[in-house]
Amino acid sequence: MAKETTIPLPVEIPEEGTQGHEHAGHLCMPEDSRKRAARRLAIARGHLESIRRSLEDPHVYCVDVLRQIKAVQGALDGAAGVVLRGHLEAHVATAATRGDEKELVDELMDVFKYL
Amino acid sequence: MAKETTIPLPVEIPEEGTQGHEHAGHLCMPEDSRKRAARRLAIARGHLESIRRSLEDPHVYCVDVLRQIKAVQGALDGAAGVVLRGHLEAHVATAATRGDEKELVDELMDVFKYL
Amino acid sequence: MAKETTIPLPVEIPEEGTQGHEHAGHLCMPEDSRKRAARRLAIARGHLESIRRSLEDPHVYCVDVLRQIKAVQGALDGAAGVVLRGHLEAHVATAATRGDEKELVDELMDVFKYL
Amino acid sequence: MAKETTIPLPVEIPEEGTQGHEHAGHLCMPEDSRKRAARRLAIARGHLESIRRSLEDPHVYCVDVLRQIKAVQGALDGAAGVVLRGHLEAHVATAATRGDEKELVDELMDVFKYL
Repeated sequence: MAKETTIPLPVEIPEEGTQGHEHAGHLCMPEDSRKRAARRLAIARGHLESIRRSLEDPHVYCVDVLRQIKAVQGALDGAAGVVLRGHLEAHVATAATRGDEKELVDELMDVFKYL
Repeated sequence: MAKETTIPLPVEIPEEGTQGHEHAGHLCMPEDSRKRAARRLAIARGHLESIRRSLEDPHVYCVDVLRQIKAVQGALDGAAGVVLRGHLEAHVATAATRGDEKELVDELMDVFKYL
Repeated sequence: MAKETTIPLPVEIPEEGTQGHEHAGHLCMPEDSRKRAARRLAIARGHLESIRRSLEDPHVYCVDVLRQIKAVQGALDGAAGVVLRGHLEAHVATAATRGDEKELVDELMDVFKYL
Repeated sequence: MAKETTIPLPVEIPEEGTQGHEHAGHLCMPEDSRKRAARRLAIARGHLESIRRSLEDPHVYCVDVLRQIKAVQGALDGAAGVVLRGHLEAHVATAATRGDEKELVDELMDVFKYL
């Protein structure tokens, strides 16, 4: 899953626990974002499962299902916001110091198409 | 608009299998939409769980996570589309014949705020 | 601009001022929605023009421009909401009485892709 | 984050023509983004005006209007994308070299709520 940025530098592994550290030439997600996003995704998954189960009831009402799906999408927006903030802080705001601005901005603009 | 969701009443299964049938004064989701939406939600839940697990890897990359979350949101849009189409066909398009246009349209406009 | 639905009936022109009336086989926009949407679009256009002018200033700040563009998009969402509500009330909720449910729902689902 | 918009100060044009230059402590929009965004907004404004005029026709059809509004929103997304890219390249990617990461990221996250 670790995405390689295009900088093929022989980087040394940073001391443990740093935020937005590089590992073998990859930018890695800040630990705090990673844990917070995981918690939010676990909650969204539980919500999704309860919607799926509610669809076993033949008397479920369409609009209730729509509302529930929208609530899960809001939760996923929240999780994506956590990840995005970590990325902006740890990687994008420091890009000029590493020299990978172009790659990071192109990549982010590509992701924003879906936001 | 009377609606009901997960309340486990000892209801009799409606005999006719009609689409968008009423039950005890509620509009119920067409069976076909219900099954198709459930399948899509099950797939989305699996995808969400695999993203959550990927966050256990300290070398996961932010932008990969963002892309995956967006893919799940696309899948949920698809599930919501299935539910919405069923609702429009079975309930909204027939509202004038029942006389509940106002409730259905208000309710739908309220949901659309989140779409 | 008047969109033809697919019903090629020889319809008579309805008495003036009816909401969601048909004209020569077309469904037409309710007058009230039409006027309210027009007012909102006129305001959005003025706002857009003021943003465009602000871009003549070399010291304008990116994030201010982004915020202004987003405000205009919110205004356009509002205008689209007015049009959508009129359409749901005047045309979709009455579709079963005319028999064009399928066309109206397909068309609406197609529009929702962009919402 | 100090920013300035339409205030018509008698400012001297910055000599260098640099992208994302500062002026009196403000970050200013890169010239190229500024001109491209202005062109796109001018086109969107023209489109918006033509939709508004189309609403003078009592036979205009709701769904045509919805589609046209959505097309303008797509054009505004394009304009916002131009501005956002300029901002990311000129200001966000260089934030760590100036020390205003926190302000820039907070501000951007705030804007993304609307995206």
